Amino acid sequence: MEPEDFRAAGHELIDWIADFRTGVADRPVKAAVRPGEVRGAFPSEPPTGADDVRALLDDLDRAVVPGTTMVQHPMHFGWFPSNAALSSVLGDLASSGLGALGISWESAPALTEVEEVVCDWMRQLTGLSDRWHGSINDTASSSTFVAMLAARERATDHAQTGGGLGAHGRPLVVYTTDQAHSSVRKAALLAGVGADELRMVEVDPWTRAMRPEHLRDLVEADVAAGRQPMAVVVSVGSTGTTAFDPVDEVAAVCADHAIWLHVDAAMAGSAMLLPECRHLWHGVERADSVSWNPHKWMGTILDCSLLYVTDPEHLVRVFSTNPSYLRSTADGEVTQYRDWGIPLGRRFRALKLWFHLRLDGVAEIQTRLRRDLANAQWLAAEVERTEGWEVVAPVLLQTVCVRHRPLGPDGDPLTGAALDDHTTRWLAELNDSGRAYCTGSVLDDRWMVRVSIGVEATERRHVEALWHMMRDFAET
Amino acid sequence: MEPEDFRAAGHELIDWIADFRTGVADRPVKAAVRPGEVRGAFPSEPPTGADDVRALLDDLDRAVVPGTTMVQHPMHFGWFPSNAALSSVLGDLASSGLGALGISWESAPALTEVEEVVCDWMRQLTGLSDRWHGSINDTASSSTFVAMLAARERATDHAQTGGGLGAHGRPLVVYTTDQAHSSVRKAALLAGVGADELRMVEVDPWTRAMRPEHLRDLVEADVAAGRQPMAVVVSVGSTGTTAFDPVDEVAAVCADHAIWLHVDAAMAGSAMLLPECRHLWHGVERADSVSWNPHKWMGTILDCSLLYVTDPEHLVRVFSTNPSYLRSTADGEVTQYRDWGIPLGRRFRALKLWFHLRLDGVAEIQTRLRRDLANAQWLAAEVERTEGWEVVAPVLLQTVCVRHRPLGPDGDPLTGAALDDHTTRWLAELNDSGRAYCTGSVLDDRWMVRVSIGVEATERRHVEALWHMMRDFAET
Repeated sequence: MEPEDFRAAGHELIDWIADFRTGVADRPVKAAVRPGEVRGAFPSEPPTGADDVRALLDDLDRAVVPGTTMVQHPMHFGWFPSNAALSSVLGDLASSGLGALGISWESAPALTEVEEVVCDWMRQLTGLSDRWHGSINDTASSSTFVAMLAARERATDHAQTGGGLGAHGRPLVVYTTDQAHSSVRKAALLAGVGADELRMVEVDPWTRAMRPEHLRDLVEADVAAGRQPMAVVVSVGSTGTTAFDPVDEVAAVCADHAIWLHVDAAMAGSAMLLPECRHLWHGVERADSVSWNPHKWMGTILDCSLLYVTDPEHLVRVFSTNPSYLRSTADGEVTQYRDWGIPLGRRFRALKLWFHLRLDGVAEIQTRLRRDLANAQWLAAEVERTEGWEVVAPVLLQTVCVRHRPLGPDGDPLTGAALDDHTTRWLAELNDSGRAYCTGSVLDDRWMVRVSIGVEATERRHVEALWHMMRDFAET
Repeated sequence: MEPEDFRAAGHELIDWIADFRTGVADRPVKAAVRPGEVRGAFPSEPPTGADDVRALLDDLDRAVVPGTTMVQHPMHFGWFPSNAALSSVLGDLASSGLGALGISWESAPALTEVEEVVCDWMRQLTGLSDRWHGSINDTASSSTFVAMLAARERATDHAQTGGGLGAHGRPLVVYTTDQAHSSVRKAALLAGVGADELRMVEVDPWTRAMRPEHLRDLVEADVAAGRQPMAVVVSVGSTGTTAFDPVDEVAAVCADHAIWLHVDAAMAGSAMLLPECRHLWHGVERADSVSWNPHKWMGTILDCSLLYVTDPEHLVRVFSTNPSYLRSTADGEVTQYRDWGIPLGRRFRALKLWFHLRLDGVAEIQTRLRRDLANAQWLAAEVERTEGWEVVAPVLLQTVCVRHRPLGPDGDPLTGAALDDHTTRWLAELNDSGRAYCTGSVLDDRWMVRVSIGVEATERRHVEALWHMMRDFAET
């Protein structure tokens, strides 16, 4: 495609996106398609000729948009916010248009150095000290995995340079809680730690925060048994209930046993843009690595996960590659981000953060985050003062976890399977209505409903509307 | 940013990109900045207020563009082609604009199913049988790593569900050649295989293709010593010289010992769009996994690496996560791509392939690839018939590896360190001129120059101009 054809088609597409975003609130939140339905709308054989962009936009409208759950919809309260701020979309477009290749500093010095600058801005904006050095990964799964690989090699004194993990001799142990994101378990297992050596530290029954004294007991028992603690992963805003593990107390245990401490703040990292929230990760300075995702609540479009470490030289030792065709005269003077993680090639992801910060401004983002925190408190208060409803976890951030427990035939509030049936029934009806979307999750072996507030477009009136809808679907 | 502000800024940015791409040939190919120079052009503290897009475009022009090596420049012959076809840029923009969240089928059925459709189109277009099931990773580094993790778990009968790699008992061995991409070594080491168990199979001294009889010897020796072969990685178009390992003969060794065979066709996969090139990976059907990057020569903008496997159920067993908040009624009926690799969340990457195929058309892409193959043959012939010049590796694809060997003071052609000095001197002068860019690489312990042809904009006249320039810089 020639630049002039791109110009014409690009203007059409920009208008399509602006129109789409303008109208997103009028669409059903949840994609109402059956498995295979979207696939069936496409030819099974590859296209043979050249189409024009109009045909593709029509197909987007016809097959793709109805097959997409609208996570930018103001009535979307599912999973976690996955905002795609239009300012960051522009940054992403600038990255694509530039078509830079990030495989070494030399292949695109600006790609490397703007990433350094922007990661450092984000460090300052979240109150981290200048001991931290950041890079951008695609997702928190990758950030956590990089941290686990770095921890493994530190624990084994770089076994990869010799006989590998199999020759290490002592079983390596990873500690987290059953509230941690699924990617933590996955990262530990993929790093070569067995499920037998994955410890689920007890949590407080109400806050679901890790109990550091139980962590200490487990660590000491493992050490006594000849096993080697490798890493502890704490959740700063867990996925189920946005629980906060006590970072500082956990760090004390880690310090006593020289265990790598990774802070998974995928969700709650955005909150650290607000000074009043930073007590929630008190002790973070004592960790070895911390990651969080601007592509969630803050809203820099996916994929944008920040990973900070205090010892980038250790990362380089674990992840380095230095083949001759990538050597340059600048080696040693510059950052080679290929040696900070898994992929060699990287997109110019820093541009979407840069555009987001400069076009929207930090103050506007902070105002929005505070709006969402207040909306969550409002909803929690409504739920708590309403007969038959309960808030089932502390509301420290923007997610409110609730159950409706009507009276059963025996006059007592529903329990057990009957309660699960009720919860999943009203949630499915709510979601299938297309008017709002929440996610169910299992807590204490029972289903509950997570109302995760924080879509850019979600104002108080949308939360009010959701609450009315929840009552309608649950109480009838 | 509101949709109407996005519309206005988006039109400006589209024009900026169209203008940038139009003028790319007038810029220096190589970024002429010193380490730290781009960083120094940015404030060290984060921006405090809201800017407008004009200010950002000015900063792109002022600080980012001059700090970026122009891999879309017709005189760029470095590394491998990293085309960013403008049609695929539009697809990437559509993905960003849609703002979909790919964490499960339910979160965006279209994201999953269009990826299935497009991967299957690409399968057909490269002549793979319908035994293969594809997904899109960010880079070949990740694709190879996923393959190594899958191979590890198959070799250990899923050690991750028990005591992990440390409890497996037998050392795991990975086989490749010293011509393999650096990411192969990295993937094996990160998967927990030690450097001691990484075997470099001998290559043919001219073709640099793996010698299957040596592979067999190594495997048998390892088995006899109680070690366990885990995986063989063959290069289909190696990075240095685009060497082709003999897939079929290697597959025979793998079959005899039940070893996972991964085909790294990162570069040469694009060539498989041409039926006449498919003999170069003859035997690929016998492999367990194969990956290649449309974001290289084919030109679907980075990041777009295809990974095909014959047994996706095995991938799911290795990479699965099924927390309650991601369960849906469609489980079991649909593909959950989060269980095919490392990240949970994924962008709607299929759109860029879809736009690329439909807007440019396969025929146009094939014509371009054939143009590049012919240009490489032309250059190789010119080099070979010119006194003092030599082609140092077979030209089976679009990369021509050359040395200029002038006569030294003693009347004999330069050798050793003197030859290296000469090669690196003229290459540096060529690259520093800004008029063209090639990559140096070490072959048989001596520097040579790779001319990697295949930028979308590179016509015969550009290759001719390069050849004149090479002679000018080397012969004077």
